[in-house]
Amino acid sequence: MDWKPDFASETPLYLQIKAFIIHKISLGEWAVGTKIPSQRALAEQFGVNRSTVVTAISDLIAEGLLAGNTKGGTRVINNSWNLLTASPPPDWSSYVQAGTHYPNLPAIQHINRAEFQEGMIRLGTGELSPDLLPSERMKNIFAESSANPFTLGYEEPKGNLALRKQIAQYLQGNGIHTSSSNILIVSGALQALQLISMGLLQRGSAILLEKPSYLYSVHVFQSNSMKLVGLPMDEEGIQTSQIGRYKKGYNASILYTIPTFHNPTGTLMTEERRQALMQACTDEGLPIIEDDAYRELWFDEPPPLPLKARDPHALVLYLGTFSKTLSPGLRLGWVVAPEPVIERLADIKMQNDYGSSSVSQWAAAEWLGRGLYQEHLDEIRKQLKMRRDVAVQLLQTYFAGLAIWRVPAGGFYIWVQLTVDVPMQSLFERALKDGVLLNPGSIYNRHTGNYLRISYAYAKLHELEWGLKRVAILIRDLVGK
Amino acid sequence: MDWKPDFASETPLYLQIKAFIIHKISLGEWAVGTKIPSQRALAEQFGVNRSTVVTAISDLIAEGLLAGNTKGGTRVINNSWNLLTASPPPDWSSYVQAGTHYPNLPAIQHINRAEFQEGMIRLGTGELSPDLLPSERMKNIFAESSANPFTLGYEEPKGNLALRKQIAQYLQGNGIHTSSSNILIVSGALQALQLISMGLLQRGSAILLEKPSYLYSVHVFQSNSMKLVGLPMDEEGIQTSQIGRYKKGYNASILYTIPTFHNPTGTLMTEERRQALMQACTDEGLPIIEDDAYRELWFDEPPPLPLKARDPHALVLYLGTFSKTLSPGLRLGWVVAPEPVIERLADIKMQNDYGSSSVSQWAAAEWLGRGLYQEHLDEIRKQLKMRRDVAVQLLQTYFAGLAIWRVPAGGFYIWVQLTVDVPMQSLFERALKDGVLLNPGSIYNRHTGNYLRISYAYAKLHELEWGLKRVAILIRDLVGK
Repeated sequence: MDWKPDFASETPLYLQIKAFIIHKISLGEWAVGTKIPSQRALAEQFGVNRSTVVTAISDLIAEGLLAGNTKGGTRVINNSWNLLTASPPPDWSSYVQAGTHYPNLPAIQHINRAEFQEGMIRLGTGELSPDLLPSERMKNIFAESSANPFTLGYEEPKGNLALRKQIAQYLQGNGIHTSSSNILIVSGALQALQLISMGLLQRGSAILLEKPSYLYSVHVFQSNSMKLVGLPMDEEGIQTSQIGRYKKGYNASILYTIPTFHNPTGTLMTEERRQALMQACTDEGLPIIEDDAYRELWFDEPPPLPLKARDPHALVLYLGTFSKTLSPGLRLGWVVAPEPVIERLADIKMQNDYGSSSVSQWAAAEWLGRGLYQEHLDEIRKQLKMRRDVAVQLLQTYFAGLAIWRVPAGGFYIWVQLTVDVPMQSLFERALKDGVLLNPGSIYNRHTGNYLRISYAYAKLHELEWGLKRVAILIRDLVGK
Repeated sequence: MDWKPDFASETPLYLQIKAFIIHKISLGEWAVGTKIPSQRALAEQFGVNRSTVVTAISDLIAEGLLAGNTKGGTRVINNSWNLLTASPPPDWSSYVQAGTHYPNLPAIQHINRAEFQEGMIRLGTGELSPDLLPSERMKNIFAESSANPFTLGYEEPKGNLALRKQIAQYLQGNGIHTSSSNILIVSGALQALQLISMGLLQRGSAILLEKPSYLYSVHVFQSNSMKLVGLPMDEEGIQTSQIGRYKKGYNASILYTIPTFHNPTGTLMTEERRQALMQACTDEGLPIIEDDAYRELWFDEPPPLPLKARDPHALVLYLGTFSKTLSPGLRLGWVVAPEPVIERLADIKMQNDYGSSSVSQWAAAEWLGRGLYQEHLDEIRKQLKMRRDVAVQLLQTYFAGLAIWRVPAGGFYIWVQLTVDVPMQSLFERALKDGVLLNPGSIYNRHTGNYLRISYAYAKLHELEWGLKRVAILIRDLVGK
């Protein structure tokens, strides 16, 4: 949709637009059944008045190519070749509904799209701000010569060996002693979950997890006919007393946890709770997925050791990633697990995508091998701590009396509980209209309606201020205060 | 497994090895149930005599940590912590068998592993030789300044916009008129198939395809409970007369084809057959997946236009990739399809891996935008044609009387039919022992046992000669000629 009418042409604009739409239909890009963009959206894209678009579409409706419906949507109902053949073209809309995989939650799809709207202030985005990403340094790494060769071929099934060795060494600093053969390189922690879902778990089994959890916002397990069973949290992390009962009651095959700077609550699991969790899972023979994406983002002191560092029975599948620290665009993470598990997951990864980008893997190995990653982490910690302080200050200024929250010791998120009764859907929509994108708590479990996940990692500081102030005004407005 | 014993130490080697194995077990890296590497493999890795390894392992068996079986394999059966706890550790072997996704065929797993053995001559590998990959040029692209900014953040759900625009423009040269909104960037054509399988097709439906086909070598559809139904081929491509009958008889939901330089047969579908195929599928309302990975690799004249270039009814989902021309390591391909389909696939891709590497996408956009890709293709075509000529010459020299084949007009493969009766499994194993890795025809459909897929793209020319000569000798040996 990069086309615009030629304003210098003698052909009327509405005829140019008509010709463009016919072109899209005749090429099959807008196949029969496709809902075309709204009149408003088309007018914006073409840079014309809405009435010009209306004229073009009315013509095409009259000619039998489009049809409007009562809700104002317009669909393609025919194309010129249809008259020439006996059979109808494939009904792609029915194919789109047929697949086994769940679509993303509508709210998530909405957010995914809104994130790419120009000028949008993103108060919930779980990424580092673009100006915290080391683009210049990355360019230099590619430009400088290296002891390791740069390869454009496929990598080994488990991933680039130099990178796996670097990760094994790096993990020692976090108390995890492993070797390259126990590591699988994946395209981010989400892919690791996808591989575990496809490769290790049975249909019908359940996954225990924190309630709320990031995991509720994706369908990685549900699409393989598994269900999520939430365990309550307190300020020390997931509660462990019910694990045995839930395991038996729900046929749980694994427990998923984000012990360090939990997404979305920011909770840091204490040393005592970690020990209790390991004991409970050992007693039950229940394996654990430890998602440690945020570990390095501590502010005042390093968090307690990972669960994987206290795992003599190999209960823990350990996930890490560069997405939250160095670059989400690299699309790189890792799994640490017993060898038979790594081999199974590597085999499935080969069947899914033949491995992750060799260019990304090479770059990541350079960052680790040259000590640049640790340097970068030091800098990111400072920046994020400053951002957290600003966000907490802004909340105190604008949200006093409207909400409560805990101050996180690391990571990206403040889990803000509104203490006034606000219709969240209206708040989301009105904020969006004002150019502010929110992540409502319901994404992370439908029973947590009165929360917002506020991220201090992404928005610029003046956006954070403008956005939080604006949201506070909208809340007051909606509750009539 | 980077560890080696310290040969200067006063501790006997077998005790060092014993300590190392205990270390692996105690960390849980070799969990209970794990089959440890063979004595021979361990001896090689440690650089010691096999008898040293045998001594260490015998000790550990006596201590109850390992157990041997009659086939010579050794497994971990216990670890020191086991005695301290009531419940057993998770039985990872049973988890590995529980997942819903099929494992790769044992032959494919074997090949995947053997490909990374040092010095192996790979006669069937479907990749460009490393010296045909433009590593230096790629390095320069990263080092030079660019009109497009380099981003380390996430890309849009459909992929980098600059790259999608470049691909739309590039496809015009192949007769496909589309726009960036109808294109999804994927991590290679295999991932595109995975997304189609998850997102568009129903469990229990069937996929029609050429027999043999590359698609038989992966489980992308079978793992989602679909089946493959092969249609016969001739020298013009897939035969079309049975499509209607097969569609009804097998509940086929889509047809998969590689019309241009087919994998594994090298067949180029003629213009007439393309028209007949489009007509047959239009008559049946049967959508098509057109896998056009090898299109650009023609030798004397460009192939007929893609099916997608003659697709008024939007029957065709079109797949392309950079893996066969520029770099498999980039892990980039694309799908062209109607907008509702692209949006569905993009949504599932976001759920699988949050998009492909931004670094890879940026580099690919530079290759296209600066005209470097077309220059590179010209060079690759010349090199591959020369390699094909050498391979055909070698076959004539060594395989006359043993096999027949057709000379391909492009792509990577010669589909060699053995005309003597050879036990293929023995041939594969004996070749492997001699350092030559073969791709037997049975990978591409179990009823094509007497074929070899020979690739002239990967091995060095002297390896090609040595390898083909060696295989011919083994064949003569096996048939007693």
